[in-house]
Amino acid sequence: MLSSSITYRVPYADTDQMGYVYYANYLTYFERCRNELFREIDFPYTQFEEIGIMLPVVEAHCDYKQPAKYDDLITISATVTNLKGCRIRIENEIFNQQKIMLCRGYTRHAFMSSETRKPVRPPDVLMKKLETWNKE
Amino acid sequence: MLSSSITYRVPYADTDQMGYVYYANYLTYFERCRNELFREIDFPYTQFEEIGIMLPVVEAHCDYKQPAKYDDLITISATVTNLKGCRIRIENEIFNQQKIMLCRGYTRHAFMSSETRKPVRPPDVLMKKLETWNKE
Amino acid sequence: MLSSSITYRVPYADTDQMGYVYYANYLTYFERCRNELFREIDFPYTQFEEIGIMLPVVEAHCDYKQPAKYDDLITISATVTNLKGCRIRIENEIFNQQKIMLCRGYTRHAFMSSETRKPVRPPDVLMKKLETWNKE
Amino acid sequence: MLSSSITYRVPYADTDQMGYVYYANYLTYFERCRNELFREIDFPYTQFEEIGIMLPVVEAHCDYKQPAKYDDLITISATVTNLKGCRIRIENEIFNQQKIMLCRGYTRHAFMSSETRKPVRPPDVLMKKLETWNKE
Repeated sequence: MLSSSITYRVPYADTDQMGYVYYANYLTYFERCRNELFREIDFPYTQFEEIGIMLPVVEAHCDYKQPAKYDDLITISATVTNLKGCRIRIENEIFNQQKIMLCRGYTRHAFMSSETRKPVRPPDVLMKKLETWNKE
Repeated sequence: MLSSSITYRVPYADTDQMGYVYYANYLTYFERCRNELFREIDFPYTQFEEIGIMLPVVEAHCDYKQPAKYDDLITISATVTNLKGCRIRIENEIFNQQKIMLCRGYTRHAFMSSETRKPVRPPDVLMKKLETWNKE
Repeated sequence: MLSSSITYRVPYADTDQMGYVYYANYLTYFERCRNELFREIDFPYTQFEEIGIMLPVVEAHCDYKQPAKYDDLITISATVTNLKGCRIRIENEIFNQQKIMLCRGYTRHAFMSSETRKPVRPPDVLMKKLETWNKE
Repeated sequence: MLSSSITYRVPYADTDQMGYVYYANYLTYFERCRNELFREIDFPYTQFEEIGIMLPVVEAHCDYKQPAKYDDLITISATVTNLKGCRIRIENEIFNQQKIMLCRGYTRHAFMSSETRKPVRPPDVLMKKLETWNKE
């Protein structure tokens, strides 16, 4: 399974007056980890854009278990769980430094041509990388 | 059904380099409309906090249909679709000025004591307001 | 003087765990008001981009007087105070519903070609609009 | 001089449709580095809050030289340049991976009692740490 994880230090900017991380920010955490996932298979998202492909989100979901707090050093993971046609699904989990699960969720994306803004199949070179990794 | 809607002008701040609104920001749009919904039944969220109740999100979901763009004047709606025990569910839709649906989603929340940070039943006065409205 | 103002309801998203609006968000408030300012002279920023002009910020400053809080209905104003060559300066003030000044600041911008990404003089039609207004 | 620096990978979330990092986000970068600076003298900001002290921003300034872009690995530095009475000033610089300066700026903060929300002198233990470091 193609999987990746990063650590991230929660800044004040991400909190709200409840004293926890504001709920929309977890989706940016998912993105931070997606970026590393594509970098790790030598196909960083900047390269997507160079070859005229964008990967907009078509669906996002998050179940919030426990709050992340200011200054927490959280671990974010991302795993490709589905890849077919023009779609890809990535599952995410976030844990804090006490190994407590804070949330889990997923995003689904469409491969899209940045020129036509229509769905396209991902380029073979990327498909091969994704499939190879997923077999491991 | 208890329902509310607001309009919102999309600033540059909300966009990303794809030229569309960044996907996490739709969740902040949902929140902006939730705030108005509670204000409309004369129970603004500030009052929740005054009586020691918080309403953290336990689940969020969004299906992205069409992108919102910079300077769009979008309409965000929120409808209470479920309310029982310590939980409430609110459904959201967002349309642009051409009446095109941009996304739909929902959030689920738990009523929580700000002192104990444990689930509580919402106060009767709020329940009555929510139920009255929902019967209409 | 070319001047404009808008009102804005502070969402939870903008606050931090100090219970006030996070300091960087005031700069997004400045932007929201700049957008209306250009719209009011019939030259919305979308039109800038259509004719190949961008207006990146080259300097930003903010003095924080009193905190904005969740659910405040703030008034943001923007005034063009300097316009020469390829530069424009806009001053901003923010007040809350009790007419208390929360902050004041300014941004300076460069007119830039979106093609060459180099400084350019603003188009005559915009200059005329800005100058006409400023004389009033 | 008490100084600290961190690296940070720019996510899509931080960009806007100009293709650069949105100008307000640089202030959150400054904050990320401030956090590390206080951690390095064994007085993390969480400890400020534990002893009833907050450090709100009273002034912020930023000069934007070159844009930060998506996926840049930027280096943010923070240096305490002034500390007297109830005030502290921190200067910041940001460079990209090609060692090009992207921006410089500063923030000024007031030590404030979280109980009275009035200015206070920082506790001796913190003052000693800050002064010791600054002499080096």
